[in-house]
Amino acid sequence: MSTIQLSSEHVCYGGVQQFFKHDSRETRGAMKFSVYLPPQSRTARVPVLYYLAGLTCTEETFAIKAHAQQLAAELGLMLVSPDTSPREPRVPGDADSWDFGQGAGFYVDATQAPWSANYRMYSYVTRELPELVSANLPALAHAAGIFGHSMGGHGALMCALRNPARYRSVSAFAPIAAPQHCPWGQKAFSGYLGEDRQAWREYDAAECVLRAPFPRPILIDQGTADQYLAEQLLVERFSAAAAKSGQQLNLRMQPGYDHGYYFIQTFMADHLRHHAALLR
Amino acid sequence: MSTIQLSSEHVCYGGVQQFFKHDSRETRGAMKFSVYLPPQSRTARVPVLYYLAGLTCTEETFAIKAHAQQLAAELGLMLVSPDTSPREPRVPGDADSWDFGQGAGFYVDATQAPWSANYRMYSYVTRELPELVSANLPALAHAAGIFGHSMGGHGALMCALRNPARYRSVSAFAPIAAPQHCPWGQKAFSGYLGEDRQAWREYDAAECVLRAPFPRPILIDQGTADQYLAEQLLVERFSAAAAKSGQQLNLRMQPGYDHGYYFIQTFMADHLRHHAALLR
Repeated sequence: MSTIQLSSEHVCYGGVQQFFKHDSRETRGAMKFSVYLPPQSRTARVPVLYYLAGLTCTEETFAIKAHAQQLAAELGLMLVSPDTSPREPRVPGDADSWDFGQGAGFYVDATQAPWSANYRMYSYVTRELPELVSANLPALAHAAGIFGHSMGGHGALMCALRNPARYRSVSAFAPIAAPQHCPWGQKAFSGYLGEDRQAWREYDAAECVLRAPFPRPILIDQGTADQYLAEQLLVERFSAAAAKSGQQLNLRMQPGYDHGYYFIQTFMADHLRHHAALLR
Repeated sequence: MSTIQLSSEHVCYGGVQQFFKHDSRETRGAMKFSVYLPPQSRTARVPVLYYLAGLTCTEETFAIKAHAQQLAAELGLMLVSPDTSPREPRVPGDADSWDFGQGAGFYVDATQAPWSANYRMYSYVTRELPELVSANLPALAHAAGIFGHSMGGHGALMCALRNPARYRSVSAFAPIAAPQHCPWGQKAFSGYLGEDRQAWREYDAAECVLRAPFPRPILIDQGTADQYLAEQLLVERFSAAAAKSGQQLNLRMQPGYDHGYYFIQTFMADHLRHHAALLR
């Protein structure tokens, strides 16, 4: 187990916003993540809510833009948000696209060279990061939830559906809900996974929910003015699969909202309360 | 009166976060500012609260980092935040320092060449911007407040103290409270105002409050772990001057908080309520 190093910390709503880095076993390089520790964590272990960010984002995005700390401080939730890809060692071509490589790990374990050596974000998010959090931070055992936005909404849904014993709650903002059927997902899956369509299906949230519903309700918020809804997000495919498999789904179409953090912050409180209720 | 052009807008907490640009009379170039319109402004004019940001910031900083929209939507406050300096036309040397020139207008009207042609942020903030807001947005007349952070805290205090009829409320986060006595202020005032110490005093908040207190209470929050407190901010000089002149001042030293937006967001609600009560 590598140790984690505190890069910076800032008192915030009586708790503390921290930024860590560490040498990752999975990505074989330095990784960064952010943690918000609510005031309650000074005297007791608290539930942990993981947030996966979207394309081009970093471990700072959620901490700066999502406006989650205030209510997390009230509810006693720890918030953990990792970076969205390895950043080092550099891989040839990793900065050529904004939607592939750096900032675009897509939460999969790559099988294709040269990505397979480092781009192992699925194992990083579902195994290594929780182990680090559990070993180094005041996290309550068996009380973890996961949520995310866009590419991170895909990641959250897929990670929870594939690991229902590891996550007790899941929600998403404007997720890439059926990545095998949209251009962003097809580009990422081709590059990281090659032409093995079975591997694609393993990482496709709509496919996952069809096979085995999550044992608790899923909350999804989706803006109707989201510029990516029709071509990239395809939430209706997830919704149809959920209906078929009996998944409890609270899909809320939010009139006029777009794809960004002004949308996310507006409904952040509802998501935090959704998780807090299931993590109690 | 130049017209303002909407650059982008995002629905947020039932209201809308907007970004505008326009040709400025005072700075003789394009200027940008952000506006949050609360839901109440669809049917009625609402009070306006101006926010002045600190060194290196832009018109986006407050909108992204300060977490003010949620409560502004409840309280029915319009939030307006300008850029922190002219950006064009370019002035030779305007990007040589992070604490002078671009991103560091210091809310003064420069008298020294080459700055005097464009760096007129005092007149921009106190006259041109309110005229634009009044003419183009659903602003209630005679109900304006002003607040800010660091360099913008200096700006807010100084603008309100010099224009008590124009602003009905004022507050600040970690303001540069006596700029004529600190390195940041001395660098800015020398560059923009030259060696005319009388002009320096006109823009020094501690000097302004000594001459004539603001007719309503001033709220200031200051973190005790702020890395700039001792050398640059000098809030004790403002506090001493306020005591001498009879200014009502609620100066709150916040244990453990630093100079950044994790501090600001923590006490944002208190500031919005302070203004809302005085603007009603």
